[in-house]
This record gives sequence, structure tokens and C-alpha cells, in this order.
Amino acid sequence: MKALVFDGKEGKVGERKKPASENGEALIQVHRAGICNTDLEIVKGYMEFQGVLGHEFVGEVVDSKENQWIGKRVVGEINCYCGTCEFCRNGLGNHCPNRTVLGILNRNGVFAEYVSLPIHNLIPVPDSVPDEQAVFTEPLAAAFEILEQIRVTPEDRVVVIGDGKLGLLVAQVLRLSTPQVLLLGKHPEHWEFLSEKGIKGMSVDQLEPKPEFDVAVEASGSPAGLETAISILKPRGTLVLKSTVARPNNSFNWNLLVINEIQVIGSRCGPFKPAIEALKDKSVEVQSMIQKTYPLSNGVEALRHAGQKGMLKVQLMMND
Amino acid sequence: MKALVFDGKEGKVGERKKPASENGEALIQVHRAGICNTDLEIVKGYMEFQGVLGHEFVGEVVDSKENQWIGKRVVGEINCYCGTCEFCRNGLGNHCPNRTVLGILNRNGVFAEYVSLPIHNLIPVPDSVPDEQAVFTEPLAAAFEILEQIRVTPEDRVVVIGDGKLGLLVAQVLRLSTPQVLLLGKHPEHWEFLSEKGIKGMSVDQLEPKPEFDVAVEASGSPAGLETAISILKPRGTLVLKSTVARPNNSFNWNLLVINEIQVIGSRCGPFKPAIEALKDKSVEVQSMIQKTYPLSNGVEALRHAGQKGMLKVQLMMND
Repeated sequence: MKALVFDGKEGKVGERKKPASENGEALIQVHRAGICNTDLEIVKGYMEFQGVLGHEFVGEVVDSKENQWIGKRVVGEINCYCGTCEFCRNGLGNHCPNRTVLGILNRNGVFAEYVSLPIHNLIPVPDSVPDEQAVFTEPLAAAFEILEQIRVTPEDRVVVIGDGKLGLLVAQVLRLSTPQVLLLGKHPEHWEFLSEKGIKGMSVDQLEPKPEFDVAVEASGSPAGLETAISILKPRGTLVLKSTVARPNNSFNWNLLVINEIQVIGSRCGPFKPAIEALKDKSVEVQSMIQKTYPLSNGVEALRHAGQKGMLKVQLMMND
Repeated sequence: MKALVFDGKEGKVGERKKPASENGEALIQVHRAGICNTDLEIVKGYMEFQGVLGHEFVGEVVDSKENQWIGKRVVGEINCYCGTCEFCRNGLGNHCPNRTVLGILNRNGVFAEYVSLPIHNLIPVPDSVPDEQAVFTEPLAAAFEILEQIRVTPEDRVVVIGDGKLGLLVAQVLRLSTPQVLLLGKHPEHWEFLSEKGIKGMSVDQLEPKPEFDVAVEASGSPAGLETAISILKPRGTLVLKSTVARPNNSFNWNLLVINEIQVIGSRCGPFKPAIEALKDKSVEVQSMIQKTYPLSNGVEALRHAGQKGMLKVQLMMND
């Protein structure tokens, strides 16, 4: 099969052996995949991963020991856990120390014609959600993770820092809990479709730096974003960290965290069910975020395109 | 009156005008004061404070418009708030943006023969708590602040990083909530009296670095302490930051906060009532932490002594 592989130096499209549906895993024919910033960081060395890239996908089950799954259109949770350790027993499989992670840690990813995943990682996609939107389930779930971790009420003033792919999803998810969401970024062209949802976009230069927010979400991946977040949070406010980067370089003044008793929460993968529901009932808009779709054979060009400043979602189509 | 003053360059003992008990504040004759790391950081430039140093004290009310306070032995909360802003109205006076802070921010401190404070900042000291122990109320309250912010249960494994003044108090306070408290530090001579309380002391080199703790408290003020804390916390664990330093210099890998979904909580001043109770019922031991007492006239020498590596509490006596 064809696959986009990172060999530790560069990404290349080439031929790979098709995975078998062994160990009770389902074999999935990938329809479409999305390029995430994490993929771009991996190509810069993040996680020291080598293998088939990619973890955002939608596809069809073509082989499974459980017949009822065959032919189903699915998305899949990316963490594959052992099921027996302390974390797994407490429902925290995403933190299983023995886990593999699709296209990120010891498991080949989805920028390929086929991928295998445990059946319990799969979630069927409703017919009304087209492939190009279903691919957003995974990053949208990561945005919903915030609501699993903290309580956001309509009284809360929320700021999302970073108007890239993740920031736009996070802003929309938080908008479901409070009407007071401000998005800080550098790309006014990304703010338009959000204004229809009652989310205001603004450049950080336009914002008077005073402590007025209850919750700040850092989704820019830059040290400056972290500094900004801390400077505009109220005392006892909450800072959510959503970005991982290959070369973290943040020398910030932690005194402010102590003096203002700020709570910082790291936030990673999230629940698929509310994400699929939001795609189905269109409470979160993703179609406007698709900037281009490439065939898998042009995967290297797609990665390059996705890495340009201010780029939103670039997708790969497998059946070209 | 005599006072130990920081002029922006150095600390000096000199003559100052005795404060008046104006604006409804009480005038207190200071008996004894404690030197805190924050005082040592201020002398290095922290907070750009200038004036009479010091905020840990016990003394006697000698003038007040409320007669019943005169003659009372008291300790005092260090944050003086406006009482009318959003934070004050919500019971968060410690975060009042208009606050002054004793010996730290726009208010002269307690390394002096007299100090003035609002009456509602004062708390009477039980007769059974001697002066040299009562001085610990403020730092002990800062340790109790952790229990106001997070829930610690007997199932939780807790590590306190830093076996200085603050670390020893924090370890003892957390020991009240769980028997599983480990203190990491560099001063085995500080661990002895804690072992009687069932708290184990250990050098960080002796600890196998694996993620086994539910709660870590950073009380060392060093970037290495922060790195250590993050590396030994379980996923979804809680990191409490207790230290403020003049020159924060922590370039750490924040990816781990995200991947392991760690919660970081800045923690500052705390409630005096449980602190005084703990001193009264001796559930927290402070007497062993006093290393030397100086007369105020030797205040500069006392500061120098307190700044030596591994030094515990150095106190000042005002009536020399």
C-alpha cells in the first residue's frame, strides 16, 4: 500500500506492507486524513517518532473478527492502551504508560491506504457527517477535553490565544459554555466565520493588557502566547495549555503564577462522543477551516503546504 | 523607633518615625519577627520594594480605636485590601489589586519596634503559644493554603521538593492529610525531627525518577526543583508552586504538562486560623526550626545569616 512515512529525517511517500488485522484489531481502509500541527512537529523531531505519520482520519472497516463492524464508516481514538495497568483500571487509558499512539508513539499512523486499530477505539460516524468533516473529530475531541477538566460557566470571560486550527476549534467549543469568548491571533481572515457564532477575534496588540479573564487557553504554541495568557488572567484564573512543540523554549516569570495563584492545566486528547455530536448538529463549524485537499501521492507537498504560517486544515485523500 | 530598612541597595538598621494608629489601624509593638526567603529575595530586588522589611511577626496592640484590642498579643495577616473591589466582595481580599502587603508592597514591614495594621488583619494568639512559635503563623498559613486549593486524601502520595523553611512546614501540613509524604532536599540534618512525624526525608539523587506521586509541591525555588517535580508526578497529577524568586530562570519542557495533563497551582498566602490551631495543639513542630535569634540592632547580620545555604529560621527580637 501507499503511505507517507517519516524516516527520522524527512517525510516520503512510498510502498509499505499493508497491516494485517491481527491481535484482534480491525483493518480500516482510510478515506481521508487531516494534517495536524503535531505531525508537523514530529517531522521536526518531536517524540522521535519514525513510521507512517498521521492520526486524524475517517475510513471504513474492511476486516474485523467482529463481523458487525465490517463496512462501517468510523473514526478512531488514537491512544491504544494495555487495559490492565492502574491508569486503565481507573478509566484513564489515555495515560496508560504502556500505550501506543497512532502516528505518534510506537504505532503506524493514518497517512496510508490502510491502518489497523483495536475495535474498542472505533466510533461509527453518522451518515449526515461527510468525510471531510468527520476527519475533524479527533482535534475537536481535544478541544472538548477542556470541558472535561474545568467548569466553564456563562459568567466566565474566556480568551483563546492562537487562531490556528486548534484555537478555532477551542474557541467554538468554549462558546458552547459561555458567550464571552475572545480569540487572540494574527489572522483576521480566520475570524470571519467565528463572528457569526458570537466569537470576537482580535490582534494581541489591540488588547489592553489587564487581568480580566477567568480562563485563558494557550493554543499558539509560542512562549509569547504563554506570557500573554498569564498577563491577562485574573488572580485565581485558569490557564489551559493545549500545545506541544518540538522545541519548547519558554523562560517565563513563574512568580506571577504564585502571586496570582493561577491554576495551569495541561490538556491533551479528549472524548470523541461530544465531538461527533457537535459535528452532527453543526454547533461547531469545521467546513470553513479546510484549505486544501491533496491526494496521498502528493503527501510531501501537502505537509509543506500545511506548515505555512496561518494555514488551516490541509487534508489527504487516499483513493486518488 | 529602630527599624531594618531596605533602601533599594542594601538593608540598614536606623531610626524611623514611629507609625501613627491612623486611618483606623491598630498600632502594634512588635515582640519578635521571622526572616523569610521573601525578605532575602526583596534584598536582591524582588518586587522592587523599599522600606521597612519583614512580614512575619508577633506583637502587642498598644493603640487602637477599638479598646478591647489594646494589650492583646496578636499576629497579623499581611495583605491589606480595599474591601470594595470585585475580589474583596468575593472574599478574595488577598488578590485585591489595590492591596498593600506588609514589608512587600507599598507598606512598611515588621522589622521595627512598631508597625500599624488594620484591626481586621489581627488575630489573637493563645497564651499557650510562645512568641518564638507564634512568629511561624504566617508561613504556616501559607502552607495551609495548599489544603484550601486542592484536596489531599490518605491515598495520595505526596512529595515536597525543598527542605528549607517552607518545605518543612508544607511537609508537616500535608502529613495531616496523608501518611504518604516524602521530603526531597539536600539537608539530612533537617529531616530528623520530621521522621518522628512519619515524614521521610531523602536526597533527590536517591530517588528513582519515575512517575509515582499524585501531588508535588515545589518549595525549593530552583528550576531544577520544577524539573524534578514534573518528572516524578503521575499523569493527571498536581504540581503546587510555593516559591517566588527575584530572578526566575526556568526553561522547562512544558510538553510534559500537556502530555501528562498535569495541573499546576500557584499558591501564596493562606488562612491564619488553622495555622494557629496547629501551633496550639502542636500538630506542627516549629521550635526545632529556629536556628538563631538576633536583636534588631544586629538585623543586617541576621539577614546575612538567614541567607546562608541550608539555614532554617532566623528571628529578630525587638526589645533588646
